[in-house]
Amino acid sequence: MSKRLAIGVDLGGTNLRVALVTKDGEIIRKMKEPVSGGVIDLTIRLAKSFVNEEIAGIGLGVAGLIDRESSKVLTSPNLPAVEGVSLVNSIKEKFRVPVFIENDANAAAFGEKWIGVGKEFSNFVLFTLGTGIGGGIIHDKKLLKVAAEIGHITIHADGEKCHCGNSGCLESYASARALLSNVISALESGRESILKGLFNGNFYKLTAEDIYRTALDGDILAREMLKDAGKNLGIGIANIINVMSPEAIVLAGGLTGAWDIYIQEAIREASRRSFKELFNKVKIIPSLLGDDAGVIGSAGIVFENMINRRISE
Amino acid sequence: MSKRLAIGVDLGGTNLRVALVTKDGEIIRKMKEPVSGGVIDLTIRLAKSFVNEEIAGIGLGVAGLIDRESSKVLTSPNLPAVEGVSLVNSIKEKFRVPVFIENDANAAAFGEKWIGVGKEFSNFVLFTLGTGIGGGIIHDKKLLKVAAEIGHITIHADGEKCHCGNSGCLESYASARALLSNVISALESGRESILKGLFNGNFYKLTAEDIYRTALDGDILAREMLKDAGKNLGIGIANIINVMSPEAIVLAGGLTGAWDIYIQEAIREASRRSFKELFNKVKIIPSLLGDDAGVIGSAGIVFENMINRRISE
Repeated sequence: MSKRLAIGVDLGGTNLRVALVTKDGEIIRKMKEPVSGGVIDLTIRLAKSFVNEEIAGIGLGVAGLIDRESSKVLTSPNLPAVEGVSLVNSIKEKFRVPVFIENDANAAAFGEKWIGVGKEFSNFVLFTLGTGIGGGIIHDKKLLKVAAEIGHITIHADGEKCHCGNSGCLESYASARALLSNVISALESGRESILKGLFNGNFYKLTAEDIYRTALDGDILAREMLKDAGKNLGIGIANIINVMSPEAIVLAGGLTGAWDIYIQEAIREASRRSFKELFNKVKIIPSLLGDDAGVIGSAGIVFENMINRRISE
Repeated sequence: MSKRLAIGVDLGGTNLRVALVTKDGEIIRKMKEPVSGGVIDLTIRLAKSFVNEEIAGIGLGVAGLIDRESSKVLTSPNLPAVEGVSLVNSIKEKFRVPVFIENDANAAAFGEKWIGVGKEFSNFVLFTLGTGIGGGIIHDKKLLKVAAEIGHITIHADGEKCHCGNSGCLESYASARALLSNVISALESGRESILKGLFNGNFYKLTAEDIYRTALDGDILAREMLKDAGKNLGIGIANIINVMSPEAIVLAGGLTGAWDIYIQEAIREASRRSFKELFNKVKIIPSLLGDDAGVIGSAGIVFENMINRRISE
């Protein structure tokens, strides 16, 4: 009988998330811890507490460019700790089960397709909207094994330097990091805002959530900055609509909390910029699995690979 | 025995091309005529001279957004003559053979995959560089049935109005139309150039080829304009590399004639803007089939559909 549990690991941002997931995509147990330097040790420590003889394998969803042949992380601008470390081999050695690796946003897209809001679509694109911006593409109900680095599409040819080396990337205009950086610059330059009064004026402590809450209270600066980020996100969404003509755009990540301003503005901008025949057909909707999409998707990739192995044997 | 010939039609730009193509992708006979108003009549007239009882079907590669369910052209900014006409039905009625429709650049990508330079790749993206800019995506040796409107990716968020309704599209900066329009503006504003002396100063007669030839002769304006268009093309190529991480970018269309300036500049810019790990793996190469890619691909789509039908029967 095939094993009915897998471990999904999400190494996508500031937290490492690990979950024990059933063949039906149900989470039995989960944990999270802030990512520190030694990602391999941390992953092993958390996964260890979940491992039992029933484990089909471990799936890793990791921020960055993945080389699927060598199972290596080629580069990870938002999570340099995973660059150049032999994550897959170390974990394989430790647990002696099959280990698979995928980009974190790709894994989240797989999760949404498997048991999330993507179940009803054959073709959709998932955006992860957090510190950075990532993407995953589902086509014909399958995860496209491509980079899908949607955050690093140039939308302002003469724009600001991005930490990936390019300039004018979507991520430099529409991510939580960009939003915070723009708000701080505005406050430093003396703009008036309720945000000034928070944290005794130490605006380096502000979060995207603070900005959204303050915007809802009517703060002009907060509103303007969120709308500007949303508008830029809309350009990125329109670009994807014009190229991939998906049935849905699924939005995940912390910034989707700012739906009524940031996402609404993005939808308006996307409607202006994409072919109306394509825009009229696309649904722009929030992820169902939220923060769990990554661990569920990573575990799901384990099960899918085990099925494919059995078929090819 | 299955029929070994199909007719491929390319309704992609200023010329209508029709070819009789074998199951191996060989062209037996071909014709082209300038597109005028009545595209249906023109297509029927040209196809008629090729039809015999051995025809497996007719494949149409048409510029614009294709609705694959209804077989209709939803919109075609570069070829309005095909909008709202019942191309497929009219041709089906006339010839009583299966008729298939696909976007022209998608058909060209299919052609290159089938018997062109794309044969050796599993994943590549084709750009058609002419009056407009189109695209076709091959993934896992299959044509992705998506819009692939690569020319309408926004690369200058605050850029010039595009005839598609958006602003700042790749096509508005890197197509032959954009190149000519920029050259004419510069000449009108009094810039010095050898181009001024051509056609007795009637610069509205200039073609992209004239500009390239003049650039090779050392003309500063022509060189500058070609490089600028190439730089913008490079941004579009980098965007596609970062999202689709293809093995190859295949470049087709008239503007590839300006390889040594326009395309070389595009390659330089793409190398600056895409993830180096992805850029180092991608080959940027010219199409093999040239102007025939569309007719060959359209005919190939007929054969592929006939095989799929037989399998499903």
